[in-house]
Amino acid sequence: MIVLAGPATNGIDEGVARHLSVELVKVNHKVFPDGESYIRIPRKVEGEEVAVIQSTYNPQDKHLVELCLIVEALKDLKAERVIAVVPYLAYSRQDRRFREGEALSSKTILNMIWRSGADALVVVEPHKPEAMNYFRGDVRIVDPSPPIASKLKGMIKEPFVLAPDRGALDRASRLSSLLGSPYNYVEKERNRETGEITIGNVPSDVKGKDVVLIDDIVSTGSTMMKVASASMRAGARSVTAVGIHFLSDQESLKKMGEIGISRIIGTNTVPTSGITVVDVSSEIAKRL
Amino acid sequence: MIVLAGPATNGIDEGVARHLSVELVKVNHKVFPDGESYIRIPRKVEGEEVAVIQSTYNPQDKHLVELCLIVEALKDLKAERVIAVVPYLAYSRQDRRFREGEALSSKTILNMIWRSGADALVVVEPHKPEAMNYFRGDVRIVDPSPPIASKLKGMIKEPFVLAPDRGALDRASRLSSLLGSPYNYVEKERNRETGEITIGNVPSDVKGKDVVLIDDIVSTGSTMMKVASASMRAGARSVTAVGIHFLSDQESLKKMGEIGISRIIGTNTVPTSGITVVDVSSEIAKRL
Repeated sequence: MIVLAGPATNGIDEGVARHLSVELVKVNHKVFPDGESYIRIPRKVEGEEVAVIQSTYNPQDKHLVELCLIVEALKDLKAERVIAVVPYLAYSRQDRRFREGEALSSKTILNMIWRSGADALVVVEPHKPEAMNYFRGDVRIVDPSPPIASKLKGMIKEPFVLAPDRGALDRASRLSSLLGSPYNYVEKERNRETGEITIGNVPSDVKGKDVVLIDDIVSTGSTMMKVASASMRAGARSVTAVGIHFLSDQESLKKMGEIGISRIIGTNTVPTSGITVVDVSSEIAKRL
Repeated sequence: MIVLAGPATNGIDEGVARHLSVELVKVNHKVFPDGESYIRIPRKVEGEEVAVIQSTYNPQDKHLVELCLIVEALKDLKAERVIAVVPYLAYSRQDRRFREGEALSSKTILNMIWRSGADALVVVEPHKPEAMNYFRGDVRIVDPSPPIASKLKGMIKEPFVLAPDRGALDRASRLSSLLGSPYNYVEKERNRETGEITIGNVPSDVKGKDVVLIDDIVSTGSTMMKVASASMRAGARSVTAVGIHFLSDQESLKKMGEIGISRIIGTNTVPTSGITVVDVSSEIAKRL
């Protein structure tokens, strides 16, 4: 196997190649003055199994198109098998038509990757695992909980894992079992027209505990902040916010600090700054 | 037929709907704080023939992904037939592997549009018409020469059409036949590693003539400027630069003026400022 690094890896390529002890090759890449991407595979790949690492953080569309350019080029160049490793998969929240006439973006994006010729797809903590079925090849889901749990164990004493909605309960359950802690969830409702979020009650047994909020994607952070404030009102000793794919800008981060969140943790599936970063490359390597 | 305007039409949607006297519907579109696009078709399309207008100028990749989201949504929503009208088709210059290992971007992009479900594709002046065969449906090529010729007739007296390389000769021939003028071409060579361009001799019969340089895509404008300077040295009375898809920035435009190019003409397939713009929507409407 060769690990082939696309233009958007955020360092995960190096980690994966090191964990697997295989050759790491970097795609030749530039952006032309008009904005188009240029892609060239600098090595013969005929008959090889190639794991392409390319995350699809902002600019999502450019990174997606680059991934498709790489995958199709590898197949044209007769690679035996192409595994698309997409640590953060964009557009995965639009996995159904919430309103009539909406694009089913998750399906279109997975179709694009599949149709460009990828045989397998590796994704870290997708928004909904069942929506991954739009990719018609072999799908492998990477659970980032082990390195996140290790990091948390060194930071807090009495964890209580809280999912910010019922859909995130499985995620909270996996993390809490590694931490040996209780877990629960808070009801969340989103108004699909205004985007406004309302949350239900925080369970009373968070009192005196180090609450760990875990969500897959943190963008504006507004859900996290609402649940964090409610947890503090319910008597939590501290609140740690974990966003596996942490997309928030500096302004949102600042607000999260201001309302009293003690620690903010993300992973290296997307570039971040000002937060604690957990490396998930060992977990990706395990699925290759 | 319905004309459906995507987020990147540069006004062509209005022109096409007016020329055809059909209903114009605008896609609901927004960009989320994290950078993802949202697409919703605001009208029932079951059983309808829909012409989607979406150009793929910068940011090319976003506009391409949006086009695929729209086309796949229309097919999901049971539109009878979807015609993708892409006035400017990005990535069309990478239509072969100039160096081993390169992505064949033109193929990948055309495959994306085809696989998302478009039955037909309408493109204004593609870089190489034969490369359009990567789209496996019905391809219709729009010749923008008629409105360009009309515009030029009011501006210059003794046109001589000059193609800035042999590959552009057919383009120059079409325009010159509408102008009733002579035409010719200049040899061009591009170093694939450095990108540097060298040009051959300008034919001596441009002397005293109003030279019209025509190219499909003008990006940095360096080819245009080299041929313009050589034409002036060969005794041309004036030089007009026509770029069908005019991608240059203000700095390049300023340089083009400084070296003595009298007029710069583009079309509305891409947004521009500071040049004379020819509307090609009537020619697109003729192919629908």
